[in-house]
Amino acid sequence: MPFLRNHLRNNPLSFLVLALPLAILARFLQWGPVWIFVLSAVGLIPMAGYIGKATEVLSVYTGPRIGGLLNATLGNAAELIITLVAIRAGLLDLVKASITGSIIGNLLLVMGMAMLVGGVKNGFQTFDRRHASNNSVLLILAILALVIPSVFSGSIGDDGSPGVESLSLGVAVVMMALYGLGILFAVKSARSPIATETIVEAHHKPGMSLLQSILLLAVATLGVVFLSELLVGEVEHVTENLGLSEFFLGIILVPIIGNVAEHLVAVQVAHRNHMELSVEIAISSSLQIALFVAPLLVFLSLAMGNPLTLIFNPFELIALGAGVIISALVSLDGESNWLEGAALMAVYLILGLSFFLLPG
Amino acid sequence: MPFLRNHLRNNPLSFLVLALPLAILARFLQWGPVWIFVLSAVGLIPMAGYIGKATEVLSVYTGPRIGGLLNATLGNAAELIITLVAIRAGLLDLVKASITGSIIGNLLLVMGMAMLVGGVKNGFQTFDRRHASNNSVLLILAILALVIPSVFSGSIGDDGSPGVESLSLGVAVVMMALYGLGILFAVKSARSPIATETIVEAHHKPGMSLLQSILLLAVATLGVVFLSELLVGEVEHVTENLGLSEFFLGIILVPIIGNVAEHLVAVQVAHRNHMELSVEIAISSSLQIALFVAPLLVFLSLAMGNPLTLIFNPFELIALGAGVIISALVSLDGESNWLEGAALMAVYLILGLSFFLLPG
Amino acid sequence: MPFLRNHLRNNPLSFLVLALPLAILARFLQWGPVWIFVLSAVGLIPMAGYIGKATEVLSVYTGPRIGGLLNATLGNAAELIITLVAIRAGLLDLVKASITGSIIGNLLLVMGMAMLVGGVKNGFQTFDRRHASNNSVLLILAILALVIPSVFSGSIGDDGSPGVESLSLGVAVVMMALYGLGILFAVKSARSPIATETIVEAHHKPGMSLLQSILLLAVATLGVVFLSELLVGEVEHVTENLGLSEFFLGIILVPIIGNVAEHLVAVQVAHRNHMELSVEIAISSSLQIALFVAPLLVFLSLAMGNPLTLIFNPFELIALGAGVIISALVSLDGESNWLEGAALMAVYLILGLSFFLLPG
Repeated sequence: MPFLRNHLRNNPLSFLVLALPLAILARFLQWGPVWIFVLSAVGLIPMAGYIGKATEVLSVYTGPRIGGLLNATLGNAAELIITLVAIRAGLLDLVKASITGSIIGNLLLVMGMAMLVGGVKNGFQTFDRRHASNNSVLLILAILALVIPSVFSGSIGDDGSPGVESLSLGVAVVMMALYGLGILFAVKSARSPIATETIVEAHHKPGMSLLQSILLLAVATLGVVFLSELLVGEVEHVTENLGLSEFFLGIILVPIIGNVAEHLVAVQVAHRNHMELSVEIAISSSLQIALFVAPLLVFLSLAMGNPLTLIFNPFELIALGAGVIISALVSLDGESNWLEGAALMAVYLILGLSFFLLPG
Repeated sequence: MPFLRNHLRNNPLSFLVLALPLAILARFLQWGPVWIFVLSAVGLIPMAGYIGKATEVLSVYTGPRIGGLLNATLGNAAELIITLVAIRAGLLDLVKASITGSIIGNLLLVMGMAMLVGGVKNGFQTFDRRHASNNSVLLILAILALVIPSVFSGSIGDDGSPGVESLSLGVAVVMMALYGLGILFAVKSARSPIATETIVEAHHKPGMSLLQSILLLAVATLGVVFLSELLVGEVEHVTENLGLSEFFLGIILVPIIGNVAEHLVAVQVAHRNHMELSVEIAISSSLQIALFVAPLLVFLSLAMGNPLTLIFNPFELIALGAGVIISALVSLDGESNWLEGAALMAVYLILGLSFFLLPG
Repeated sequence: MPFLRNHLRNNPLSFLVLALPLAILARFLQWGPVWIFVLSAVGLIPMAGYIGKATEVLSVYTGPRIGGLLNATLGNAAELIITLVAIRAGLLDLVKASITGSIIGNLLLVMGMAMLVGGVKNGFQTFDRRHASNNSVLLILAILALVIPSVFSGSIGDDGSPGVESLSLGVAVVMMALYGLGILFAVKSARSPIATETIVEAHHKPGMSLLQSILLLAVATLGVVFLSELLVGEVEHVTENLGLSEFFLGIILVPIIGNVAEHLVAVQVAHRNHMELSVEIAISSSLQIALFVAPLLVFLSLAMGNPLTLIFNPFELIALGAGVIISALVSLDGESNWLEGAALMAVYLILGLSFFLLPG
């Protein structure tokens, strides 16, 4: 099995797949909720990575246009599945928190670590300010739109009014339309703010056939569904046993689990001194969350009878606001160094500490 | 009447002048408040446009210096008149909302539509980041100054204290002084952040004599005064009949009415690939509102015995905050495309939806 | 005494040293608290200046590396001493206000005056956007981190919970670590965001021996300690007699007293058309306050039994937010003129007016 051996050497994360059978074992042998939770969380990491990898390979075969669409749609498939399972289980706070958490995780943790690692290796790293700027303008507008209903409903002091629900739906429709326009833009223009096809060109000589990649996508998706069920099923016990809030799990843990593979790519790319691509991965991923995953969750949750409103708590709003400011900074800067990376991670650390010490 | 025919061909908005006699008819034949309101609103659009046109022609005859001063002073004359009539009628909420509405209308709707139309026609449009930046720095500082009293008074939870009134007046004095300095700057420097003389140079071979332009200015001003009286007189009935809030009329309708002509110019200019001028029109107009119209309203309202304080509600503050962020983005970007324009309009749409669904 | 005569001619502030004996006189002859307060405040100005001067000379003798460290540590020594004396006297509100006041004083008043004076003399002044940008990105991240605990604790409506205290300490630890990394960065890199060694190179041919500079440092430090005691001892009487709040003294007066000398340097430098250095002085000084002085005060206050939490009131948060926006603008601009300077000072004026009229 030379493919497997090669694969394992290039993708050390794949060893984590072993967590999947262990999680099943934990379930049947009743090792307790914490073990099941931790093992299924660990198992999700490589599965999310496989979905990403399969998508990339697929997009090589489909050509850049449909490939861009695939990337834009499946780029956060793992998080989408986890959150859908969580919606069915009624964990709406966890779901909303994970939307925010994914965005700030990408902008602060991923970008910060990339700048830190890249800066230590390569010193000052420069990138084309203008391109980064285009993407981050869109991101800021998207986050602004995402945040408006919360701030308004907060200012009238009433979360459950019918106006707030209609507004949430309206925002979701507008976001989705903007996402559609973004896809159209991606198809028409070589430069796409929503899908980063460049990842494929820069990193991949497809080691798989078309069929293999479709198979991998299907298996990985099933794996994510299965492990999400295990994970979500234990959330309540875990919050009780470990004293963590559902909010904390949503805003810190779920986004990390769903994005470890992506994080690694961004950091590796920065290490190889392609800071621009690294920044693009972080911003594109955030953009997909805001413009596609969030509104999709609103629609699907409504269909599932557990309507999710786009009303975030003040903690989430502040975190998103910080994300806005930081992505603006990145685009106006055009240069990064390890101290900047450390500062980004420091902000993430302080946010995380706040979430931990002061649950909403 | 070749002048008239030519005029109508080049200025399709002029047909809307017919709304003026219809509005009078509606009043005398008692067609009901909604008809009077709508017709006088429609009639105001070309009148506001004529004031702008007459000012431009005048400024050609007076030379760039006094012309710049004229543009800076009369650029928002229509809105100023409408709001003064509204102050006399005691509609202070509508007046304050229209200050905010004019600023975000210019920054989101006008600039968004210009980028959308310009981008669809011309692809990526670039403009001198540095010049745009100068203007938007001033705008951001102006909005910041405008917003400070509200946030402070909000944080001490008391809107009617004498401190709040003094602060409002103090802010108005400082803003007006800054406006005076801006005029001085415009007179001394070729590049003026407050008045966009370039519009004149770029678009106008004066088709009128000096006398004609003064006459047009006088007639159009009278028209605006008359129609404003009609419009404001029906506000109360309209809010009752249509279920729209005074706040919504102020923040969405009044600014659109007073600026349609300006909007058109900005969009046409973008279509001709002069994105820089288009951005300048939107930012200069906002700057005039913040530095000149708003403090002037404070002074005049005091003189009229209906003192207006510069205390905005949270809805307005958020909208202005979004305006700040967006004008900063524009200046740091130096490049626009249709997707960015669509995103700006999406934010305006979501704000409008919020104002509609969640009246303060 | 040619040294003294020369010194006085080049440093007109030195005449203010006479306020020191006068303050002692005022104390012993019981001229009343306002006289003691004013004289000790005036006397602090040249003392703070001497510490700065001695540090600069020292750093010439120690070489740029240790010199950078010295500048970074002693750059705000006067403010640090005043605030420590105030902590011992239990004036925690004054201390917290002076942290905010120092940051906005640097960003709005100092930078504004520098741009105004420099712009009147030199017209449009340009500077390297990229360098300014690096520093201001760090500053924005630092202020963001500083602000997070306040906003969170505000949103749960409880300032005294143990979570808030732990969070304050946690933030202080993270900030101090980031400061340490900043020092490391400064030592390793020619370009340092925390210490502006360039001041030394640009302005100083050391007119003192190493011993003289150490002596000056010691004497000036003792002077600051002594005058701080006098000043702080009268704060309570002054607030009663003059109707000024402790908050107003902290946010406006203390920062001005501690920074007049620095202000003068920044303005002189701008006058000589070195706008970049001027901007750097303002931003570096703010950065030292946020990353070094603020956390140090948290630690020392804990050791002194009067624990200071990093929970700011809404007034301070707004002022800091304005500081964030403005320093971002500066870095994205790369060009200044006197109107921009006037606008910065206008924002400071309006903030000051708010603090005066609406004490928290």
